[in-house]
Amino acid sequence: MAAEIVNPRSDRESGTEGAPEEPFDPAFALHRGGKMAIQATVPVRDKDDLSLAYTPGVAKVCSAIAERPELVHEYTWKSQVVAVVTDGTAVLGLGDIGPEASLPVMEGKAILFKQFGGVDAVPIALATTDTDEIVETIVRLAPSFGGVNLEDISAPRCFEIERKLQERVDIPVFHDDQHGTAVVTLAALRNAAKLTGRGLGELRAVISGAGAAGVAIAKFLLEAGIGDVAVADRKGIVSRDREDLTSVKRELAEITNRAGLSGSLETALAGADVFIGVSGGTVPEAAVASMAKGAFVFAMANPNPEVHPDVAHRYAAVVATGRSDYPNQINNVLAFPGIFAGALQVRASRITEGMKIAAANALADVVGDALAADYVIPSPFDERVAPAVTAAVAAAARAEGVARR
Amino acid sequence: MAAEIVNPRSDRESGTEGAPEEPFDPAFALHRGGKMAIQATVPVRDKDDLSLAYTPGVAKVCSAIAERPELVHEYTWKSQVVAVVTDGTAVLGLGDIGPEASLPVMEGKAILFKQFGGVDAVPIALATTDTDEIVETIVRLAPSFGGVNLEDISAPRCFEIERKLQERVDIPVFHDDQHGTAVVTLAALRNAAKLTGRGLGELRAVISGAGAAGVAIAKFLLEAGIGDVAVADRKGIVSRDREDLTSVKRELAEITNRAGLSGSLETALAGADVFIGVSGGTVPEAAVASMAKGAFVFAMANPNPEVHPDVAHRYAAVVATGRSDYPNQINNVLAFPGIFAGALQVRASRITEGMKIAAANALADVVGDALAADYVIPSPFDERVAPAVTAAVAAAARAEGVARR
Repeated sequence: MAAEIVNPRSDRESGTEGAPEEPFDPAFALHRGGKMAIQATVPVRDKDDLSLAYTPGVAKVCSAIAERPELVHEYTWKSQVVAVVTDGTAVLGLGDIGPEASLPVMEGKAILFKQFGGVDAVPIALATTDTDEIVETIVRLAPSFGGVNLEDISAPRCFEIERKLQERVDIPVFHDDQHGTAVVTLAALRNAAKLTGRGLGELRAVISGAGAAGVAIAKFLLEAGIGDVAVADRKGIVSRDREDLTSVKRELAEITNRAGLSGSLETALAGADVFIGVSGGTVPEAAVASMAKGAFVFAMANPNPEVHPDVAHRYAAVVATGRSDYPNQINNVLAFPGIFAGALQVRASRITEGMKIAAANALADVVGDALAADYVIPSPFDERVAPAVTAAVAAAARAEGVARR
Repeated sequence: MAAEIVNPRSDRESGTEGAPEEPFDPAFALHRGGKMAIQATVPVRDKDDLSLAYTPGVAKVCSAIAERPELVHEYTWKSQVVAVVTDGTAVLGLGDIGPEASLPVMEGKAILFKQFGGVDAVPIALATTDTDEIVETIVRLAPSFGGVNLEDISAPRCFEIERKLQERVDIPVFHDDQHGTAVVTLAALRNAAKLTGRGLGELRAVISGAGAAGVAIAKFLLEAGIGDVAVADRKGIVSRDREDLTSVKRELAEITNRAGLSGSLETALAGADVFIGVSGGTVPEAAVASMAKGAFVFAMANPNPEVHPDVAHRYAAVVATGRSDYPNQINNVLAFPGIFAGALQVRASRITEGMKIAAANALADVVGDALAADYVIPSPFDERVAPAVTAAVAAAARAEGVARR
């Protein structure tokens, strides 16, 4: 309840002359003064404290790191802190609203990192949308951070930024809109398949949406061994015969759609086993009805799912959405805090496909014997989730040789 | 005492296989795991919390900022948070040790910001030493921060970076090694002059050191109305007849040294009223003895003052150092937390000369009637300091027309 929320900043900010009239909405009251703060974890009460935490004591620590660079992980917060970086071009469903307006989302992400993964995170909204400038800027920031969470950067620039950046820095770079979504989707899909007694290899999936999430989910499901996956954008199925494809979609056409379908989303859905909506469009009921028996409908657009859950339940064996007020919420917060916590724990240099698969499996396993049609994915508030994902990701990083401790 | 220090991270970090052997020094134990953390200031305990602090509630706040950009100050931590930016080229007395090794100092600075000014601060150590790249990088970071504290960037690049940057961003840019030192020095000097019944205009000062601090102190003392000031670098007095001067020192030669002195530091000191050491060199006792009666010796090099306090006391009426174990410590922490707190409070677009003068006066005034030869400047732990500086800087920003609330 908003009335119960204690924001230590509100005193400082309220009652100021010239403060704008506050819209009548609890979200505004909550956001007043921001949602986060810095905290010292060592005391600075007196001269002795100061001479250890600052000069002259700090000089010895600096000199030690200058001599043995790996000590930066031991004696600073670097290995605890992630930069949450955006350019404000694809913020929620709002689109390109610019860096300042994106800050509340980045702060939200930062406090979720802390709350769910024990990871410190700093919001960085950049005043540039140029791909190379974004890459260069983050390369320069890298010494201060243990990882980079790219956020709400529009496709197709997000793909290039992530790829170029990971080539340049030795800390994990992870575009959550892509990979976080893909990890949670795979976890839910694994459990849905288990529930209905099928293997991933028997399933044909159709993804609506070829943006950051759609592209990443398609690639990740193939990596995990799904039978086939087709992706549809606004113009229909991404297929080799189309001549209007960007380079990212051309690559997608090469590796997806083994069935060789072309045409509309509805064409692809006929007989399909899985629908995954990350588009924000609407799928006609007849198309849902045309899916295979025992299908799964993951309609993740927020706040309006591509298929209303009530409609989906008429035809599908398992229904998931992105909403918190329906069962089976596909929520990235199930993945990114534990993925980064695990990667930071072992000082991973990158987040590999194997680490993401491990995260999805660990997340699916939390459900365990309680598996049911309305429980294929844990709640974001299930306290077993982050520790399970963290441990699995750390172990996978070691197994894949990207761990540095 | 180190034994009493509680570091919430130490559990997580200790006992790890492969952790390096810890040097036997309490500074290392204190620094393990870093000195700071992020803290959420709003709850994220359940679905309702999440739907306000993150989606869908956050979207309304983002939209409001997109429509009215000034709301970013109301509904994010922007106006609370300062970037502490370095390139690691002039760290303490250690010199160019690189970005990673400079992080413990930046974290130290960040927790001093919090402890003394209630200002959140984020350490940013950049992987570039190129002037234009540093400027461009900080311009791109600016949307996320309320101010920029430049730190430990070597001269003369620090001057150009600060100047170019302030032309490009609408938030305060402040190179603490320059201006923080200058503000505290002026405060001490004002009180020393008051104690000995003189006006600033009657004083001739000699500064040893023409780096960031020396240049800034010289300009600031002139701004404040000092009678004359001469600056000496390693080659002697910065004077118009020298042909080896950088452009910064040429500018200095134009505005300082009205007496037209040339030659060594010792030449300048003969009959001078004030010695200000920011060089790390050593001044012979005979040169101190040659100063005017009732002179002030501010020997600020750390850990070895240019003139040992015991020697200085033989000749000078007031002695100050940079050390915490002698009276009259010229410590930047007396200035920067309150200066930024005041600037952020009124959303100042820059920190003007008038705001710095106001800070110095407020700092000097804290001493009040307790003024004495061994008390011309308050202790860093005097709780009256930051509120006094904050209020004075905020008022000056309003008076100078750079406040935006």
